[in-house]
Amino acid sequence: MSFKNIVVIGGGTGSFTVLSGLKVFRNLNLHAIVTMADNGGSTGKLRDELGVLPPGDARQCLVALAESSDVLRDLFNYRFDSGELSGHNFGNLFLSALEKITGNFEEAVKTASAILSIRGQVIPVTTENIHLSMTLANGETLLGESAIATCDVISHHKVSHIELLPKTEINPKAYDAIMKADSVIIGPGNFYCSLVPAMIVPGMKEALSKTSAQIIYNVNLMSKTGHSNGWSVEEHIQQLHRFIGAEVIDIALYNTTHPNKDLIERYKEEGLPVQRDTDTSYIGKTALIGEDLIADTLFINQHKKDPIRRTFIRHDSLKLAEALYRLI
Amino acid sequence: MSFKNIVVIGGGTGSFTVLSGLKVFRNLNLHAIVTMADNGGSTGKLRDELGVLPPGDARQCLVALAESSDVLRDLFNYRFDSGELSGHNFGNLFLSALEKITGNFEEAVKTASAILSIRGQVIPVTTENIHLSMTLANGETLLGESAIATCDVISHHKVSHIELLPKTEINPKAYDAIMKADSVIIGPGNFYCSLVPAMIVPGMKEALSKTSAQIIYNVNLMSKTGHSNGWSVEEHIQQLHRFIGAEVIDIALYNTTHPNKDLIERYKEEGLPVQRDTDTSYIGKTALIGEDLIADTLFINQHKKDPIRRTFIRHDSLKLAEALYRLI
Repeated sequence: MSFKNIVVIGGGTGSFTVLSGLKVFRNLNLHAIVTMADNGGSTGKLRDELGVLPPGDARQCLVALAESSDVLRDLFNYRFDSGELSGHNFGNLFLSALEKITGNFEEAVKTASAILSIRGQVIPVTTENIHLSMTLANGETLLGESAIATCDVISHHKVSHIELLPKTEINPKAYDAIMKADSVIIGPGNFYCSLVPAMIVPGMKEALSKTSAQIIYNVNLMSKTGHSNGWSVEEHIQQLHRFIGAEVIDIALYNTTHPNKDLIERYKEEGLPVQRDTDTSYIGKTALIGEDLIADTLFINQHKKDPIRRTFIRHDSLKLAEALYRLI
Repeated sequence: MSFKNIVVIGGGTGSFTVLSGLKVFRNLNLHAIVTMADNGGSTGKLRDELGVLPPGDARQCLVALAESSDVLRDLFNYRFDSGELSGHNFGNLFLSALEKITGNFEEAVKTASAILSIRGQVIPVTTENIHLSMTLANGETLLGESAIATCDVISHHKVSHIELLPKTEINPKAYDAIMKADSVIIGPGNFYCSLVPAMIVPGMKEALSKTSAQIIYNVNLMSKTGHSNGWSVEEHIQQLHRFIGAEVIDIALYNTTHPNKDLIERYKEEGLPVQRDTDTSYIGKTALIGEDLIADTLFINQHKKDPIRRTFIRHDSLKLAEALYRLI
């Protein structure tokens, strides 16, 4: 059994799914590079009120990689549901309090990593306090990931420019991890809110272009209405390349199983299944590989206070991990 | 070196001081039995809003016994100082979130004990959700420790009755610890808010009467204006016996060094040094032992949002521990 260095780039539920699945393969040395642009919900409040970096995406990766008791994993995911703490996630408070004490978000992640006995490493893509800014072709500017997440006319108006403010650079530890990786896995995840904010960090294009790692893109199962209306598998690849600024993806892994019709009907206002619109095996140098990746059961433990409605058509963590493992 | 089972009863800063000091003696097996009546500050809000047991006193004992890194101890003591989390103590949130997850405060304490690598055990004196109720001789009833802590006419009107509501019983683990102890140490601490709420738990009188352990009472350095005006060492012992309901104290350890005059002047509105008013060596069966127990340096890291003003005339943790160690 040969050991492999694997980098997973993204945030939120997408990285959680990939990491939870890949964790079962004991020969993989996992590095989660985490998007750092979230400013909504519990994370947004902590940023505003305490001046800390966004803990939410890092927290989900930490929990995914945790090998501690279930109680500690549950604790890091626990959301207070009454009183003035309502909506705050305990793991977020943990990282934020530690950042206030140590003055350093990476130290906070390190301490949390030890407590949760994580397998692998969680690396913020940047350690500066940045926000995402998107300008649409009609001239409108959306400041902050939360404004972008809830905007439903991005597809209509098209994105003319997207950047992180203030000017930042890739965390050298993230750069090194990509350079030393055998495989880099991007996504799945909210395209503009989880993937693009990591792709556009200055230095990411260089890292993804220079690394000898195989680069795999997990194409989303569903498009997102208002963001990626009607995007095919092929369009997803082209769009990701557009924001990276280079054609770096070696393999795009997409789902071939059509979701249950009732579910499609139920969520058609939120998005539609992502499908192929050609029958080619390659787009440029990117190989397209289709697999059954969809979860049979619904994901039902959505928090009722969660302001962003999440799709219940999900990647199956193990199916996805097995498909990835065959490639890496 | 023989191992000894030591029980420390109280809460807050008093137990923190005793436990921090005794921890250096590696042959002591420490058990902190913690008062569970607090309903003020961060603890009170958590009780009201989440319906949890009061975490504050247990948290201070956990930190005192922690042998983990300074970062984790700092984390458990960290108090958020801005936004809607302002005033909340992280360690309290930790215990409360764990109690919500496990449904069990003792499980929460156990998990925190493991994370903090504590030496010894922290045992809630009762695991029921109780409040302290005090009736003064003028008929007025004060409900909740917080109302009692801030009432400044208790000395004037005298206490006619004090009880925990609803009816509760001593935690069997606390009872067992007392029965198996070589020494039981009570106080120092706020008389009506830290000591009495532990002494009056049904079953405590029986445990303290039946145990073969030596029982030591650390008499407070200072009286508290409105609560214990002008109480001497002797009066403290008699009052404690009154609330226990039996004369169980073998040794009362009191301070013989007069605090700095400037400090006395500065804090004279809050209280005065506790002094002897007889020259006997015994009160009933209780031996009175005087030692230099006072800290030379001020305790200055008081939190600015702390609603209860704390005295800066303190027991020296090491002097107190050394004096206790000579007795046990």
